[in-house]
Amino acid sequence: MSDERPEPGTVRPGGRTAKVRAAVLRAAGDALAEQGWDTLDLAEIARRAGVGKTTVYRRWGTMQGLTVDLLKEMAEESLPRTETGTLLGDLTAQARLVLKTLRDARQGPLLRALVTAADCDAATAEALRGFYRIRIAEWVPCVEAAIERGEVPAGTDAAEVIRAVSAPLYYRFFASGDPLDDDVAARAAAAAIAAARAGVFTV
Amino acid sequence: MSDERPEPGTVRPGGRTAKVRAAVLRAAGDALAEQGWDTLDLAEIARRAGVGKTTVYRRWGTMQGLTVDLLKEMAEESLPRTETGTLLGDLTAQARLVLKTLRDARQGPLLRALVTAADCDAATAEALRGFYRIRIAEWVPCVEAAIERGEVPAGTDAAEVIRAVSAPLYYRFFASGDPLDDDVAARAAAAAIAAARAGVFTV
Repeated sequence: MSDERPEPGTVRPGGRTAKVRAAVLRAAGDALAEQGWDTLDLAEIARRAGVGKTTVYRRWGTMQGLTVDLLKEMAEESLPRTETGTLLGDLTAQARLVLKTLRDARQGPLLRALVTAADCDAATAEALRGFYRIRIAEWVPCVEAAIERGEVPAGTDAAEVIRAVSAPLYYRFFASGDPLDDDVAARAAAAAIAAARAGVFTV
Repeated sequence: MSDERPEPGTVRPGGRTAKVRAAVLRAAGDALAEQGWDTLDLAEIARRAGVGKTTVYRRWGTMQGLTVDLLKEMAEESLPRTETGTLLGDLTAQARLVLKTLRDARQGPLLRALVTAADCDAATAEALRGFYRIRIAEWVPCVEAAIERGEVPAGTDAAEVIRAVSAPLYYRFFASGDPLDDDVAARAAAAAIAAARAGVFTV
């Protein structure tokens, strides 16, 4: 790499630097999903990505630095919300997206690995928080539209409704191990709306 | 140890075998909370517990075996539910107990380590599920009493209400990293009740 190499994210998409970043982040995600956090190092990621070890060490420095960059990319790539015209439709779509992510053979284990990584490193923890902040913010307008339509009370904390939809799915995934299925997703959406209507999330 | 050593849990409390088990499980919990799952081995636990390495290897075999036994002990030691006479009082007490556990300097990191351990080993995953099954079952009678009092509809899935109380706290702890405080606990209880009243958890 040249001495004037730009920081990640500052080059045009499709440039050589962007291609290297994409390959390395893809390899990092695959490796985290397959092996978990604790046994990985940058040399292994470079090998998987087919990129020189020196390039990876120079650019990301540590597995922590690479994991933070991966979380930034995941945050940027968050899928757009669904707009169905009703809060139940929108939040059911949100719950199904969370369900699909947690049950996905790559994304589920990747999230587990990222949570473990966040537990070991403060910068990764902050990047994980940032990732969820962006995910939550993406769906907030669904609740704001529902407030305007009069479906839930004015003053409802929209982000808290979005968190309430995801929570039962994450609880089962990380803690209780109870089955994750469409019924759970449907109940998560309906429960969040019932609580919002009752004024529980009104600030 | 003698050749006729009993299986864990089959001897009288206070006997030598029970004392060794208590010391080793205490050391295992401390070590998991401090170091996490991945760097531990039985020799380190034996050293911490002040128990011979051979004893620990003979009795538990692997860190997985020891972790399963720790989860069994934790399940047996689950705190009794609070009975306040109202569902809101009871479930607020449940939410505060979860909050206290997750924020505890030993128990919070221990739960993280156990979730990581469960991700690496099927028997540990089953033991973790069993631990939550018992925790949830302990609080189910609060919802059953509320059904009898007419606070929530007949046919309400009591265990699902209990899960709904814990879920927002676990979501913040493992995923979003949003603050965990008494307001979150109070909202978790109120939201679960609102959803139950609306019939979301009725089967």
